[in-house]
Amino acid sequence: MRVLSSELPAYAGERVAMAGWLHAKRELGAVTFVILRDRAGLAQIVAEPPVELSPETVLEVEGVAVAAEQAPGGVELQEPSFRVLSEPAQQPPLELRRPVLKESLPTLLDHAPLAWRHPGERAKLAITAASVAGFRRALDGLGFTEISTPKIVASATESGANVFRLDYFGRQAYLAQSPQFYKQTMVGVFERVYETGKVWRAEPHETGRHLAEYTSLDAELGFIRDHFDVMAVVREALAGMIEGIRERLPGAVELPEVPEEIPWVHFSETCVDDVDLAPADERRLCEEHGEWLFVTGFPTAKRPFYTHPEPGRPEYTNSFDLLFRGIEIVTGGQRLHRYEDYTAALGGDTEPYEGYLQAFRYGMPPHGGFALGHERWIARLVGAKNIRETTLFPRDRNRLTP
Amino acid sequence: MRVLSSELPAYAGERVAMAGWLHAKRELGAVTFVILRDRAGLAQIVAEPPVELSPETVLEVEGVAVAAEQAPGGVELQEPSFRVLSEPAQQPPLELRRPVLKESLPTLLDHAPLAWRHPGERAKLAITAASVAGFRRALDGLGFTEISTPKIVASATESGANVFRLDYFGRQAYLAQSPQFYKQTMVGVFERVYETGKVWRAEPHETGRHLAEYTSLDAELGFIRDHFDVMAVVREALAGMIEGIRERLPGAVELPEVPEEIPWVHFSETCVDDVDLAPADERRLCEEHGEWLFVTGFPTAKRPFYTHPEPGRPEYTNSFDLLFRGIEIVTGGQRLHRYEDYTAALGGDTEPYEGYLQAFRYGMPPHGGFALGHERWIARLVGAKNIRETTLFPRDRNRLTP
Repeated sequence: MRVLSSELPAYAGERVAMAGWLHAKRELGAVTFVILRDRAGLAQIVAEPPVELSPETVLEVEGVAVAAEQAPGGVELQEPSFRVLSEPAQQPPLELRRPVLKESLPTLLDHAPLAWRHPGERAKLAITAASVAGFRRALDGLGFTEISTPKIVASATESGANVFRLDYFGRQAYLAQSPQFYKQTMVGVFERVYETGKVWRAEPHETGRHLAEYTSLDAELGFIRDHFDVMAVVREALAGMIEGIRERLPGAVELPEVPEEIPWVHFSETCVDDVDLAPADERRLCEEHGEWLFVTGFPTAKRPFYTHPEPGRPEYTNSFDLLFRGIEIVTGGQRLHRYEDYTAALGGDTEPYEGYLQAFRYGMPPHGGFALGHERWIARLVGAKNIRETTLFPRDRNRLTP
Repeated sequence: MRVLSSELPAYAGERVAMAGWLHAKRELGAVTFVILRDRAGLAQIVAEPPVELSPETVLEVEGVAVAAEQAPGGVELQEPSFRVLSEPAQQPPLELRRPVLKESLPTLLDHAPLAWRHPGERAKLAITAASVAGFRRALDGLGFTEISTPKIVASATESGANVFRLDYFGRQAYLAQSPQFYKQTMVGVFERVYETGKVWRAEPHETGRHLAEYTSLDAELGFIRDHFDVMAVVREALAGMIEGIRERLPGAVELPEVPEEIPWVHFSETCVDDVDLAPADERRLCEEHGEWLFVTGFPTAKRPFYTHPEPGRPEYTNSFDLLFRGIEIVTGGQRLHRYEDYTAALGGDTEPYEGYLQAFRYGMPPHGGFALGHERWIARLVGAKNIRETTLFPRDRNRLTP
């Protein structure tokens, strides 16, 4: 039976079989230290004769587990016999043995299938998986149902400007920019729904915070009073995501505390002389208020047609963004829920929205929801400057492979 | 505080607040029975004066919970006072109060935002959510890591014939037909990975078992002996999915037992006079062998280029399909893992596969995996004849809305 590197300390004194990649090799006099990498971590193997194997060789190895203070986990493998499962066809162009990869971001992205093998790199993806699992668990616990909505759609959900077009059996169709219309529709079915899926924006700009394809964690809930009920769920979702990472990957990254109630400030009190926040505003507001901050009440001019106005102040909306460490990671709000409000908001042009309007035609409760850009959240959490550093195989206007 | 219909029995004798949709209404002499539908189920409300409310009105209601044998859960709400949150703009075209909806499938699909509100219909989606949650839990328990791979890709993964093309910043790109190349690549990183996401096939035929967009549950694992190690994981995944449904939705659907070891038969022993199974073969084989059956060793001619040949019989492959109740729900197998095997399989034309080949260039273990079409599995499980009956908003060559 195969023993993983993380399990090796439990086998001190026993003969065990391991498997993985030759991560690094160092010769010290007559002794060769081989570092084996498997899915659980690294293990040290000490061989007396020289080992004629190159980095990234896939190995099975048998040996005796022996306590050794300087080895990872305090146990190393001695008297090894190696069996090669697969040899690399060429020398890897990245030195995975380094504590931190030295190459530039474009080089790492070009060699992503190899670069993600680095323990520090792959940890970001493990954190990503733990975070989304924590999101699902938190919302499951709040009575939400997971849904999976269409990604090929007949009309743009957000704005027509940055939508990808495709040929759908001879008709024009679009890639979903968000599950917005569908998650609202499903409030009529389950009251509380969430989705963790891909969305697409044909972003013409190449920035460190935008991608053409990203993972959106979406939720929508009915029977709310206003957007503050949605913000309370955002808080629970984030606390669940952080808890998910803490449980699965203790110590992998320094985790922030989420306040019981995240502070909030109304847009009209942010001293922003525009209808939306610029990146510099987001940074300044977090400097003033702390690493977590809701900005509420965005001006009507910058919010989509389905946004609920602020009662008594129709120039503002019952909407919010959540800023984390100087960047917007969540956007959400209360939506319109009356059929006549939608027909008024859309003017005469309701035809492309017929499917969407069905939900409102047959009775919908007051509701709202939010969307969290998952790669951006993870980037902020691990201190990555560019969202591409935490995206498995990023897509932007210049990058379609690997 | 709002009480859900499922919680009402615990409140007998108390004054409670509820909310939901007016599901049905029946007048019996001076008494009106109102059935309220919320996310948890149905509740009976008994009103003395006539209730001037129409189906799908969204309501808050306060009243006294009183034991009543004939009510759902044995408790009904009496002395109600209603508050209307939202009125339907028109009479619903489906009678949701019926135990089973009477309309034809095309009519139900046209009115899907409304039809899914029916308790029997939405149960299928709740089963879907529980099944995918069970899949993730089973694989998490086996040391798999969840990944999210690109859906806009530079080259077709399966066959060029049924791929959707899109304009990607002026270049031609495709919608992923499967995460095949990426999940194999990620075996090099995490050894064991899974993904639950959408895939797309431009299926020209309109059948009850194909869709243009569907949810694929994909897994891939390294350090296998052969495809039988993959089949063992398929078995665990299915057992986990069934367990997930049983826990969350006891009694919602009759659940099959998965044998500890699912029976299997080699393709050469199926008496099929072709290189692949036809639907009639799948039905016959399940009649002969039972509701679960692996067919292994498909002929090389019908399997994709990355499939591992059967040692000693290169006209067959180390591949399998899983049949469940007469239809294929899983396909999988062992893959090639040596770089030179890929360059040989692809011939000279390796350029479109450069990103994919990187993984094999730098050392990959023997590995394999599988893909399960989730809507098809759910359809078979609940006894739906057409996959569209268990797909939230299906996409086919004629249907792009709602």
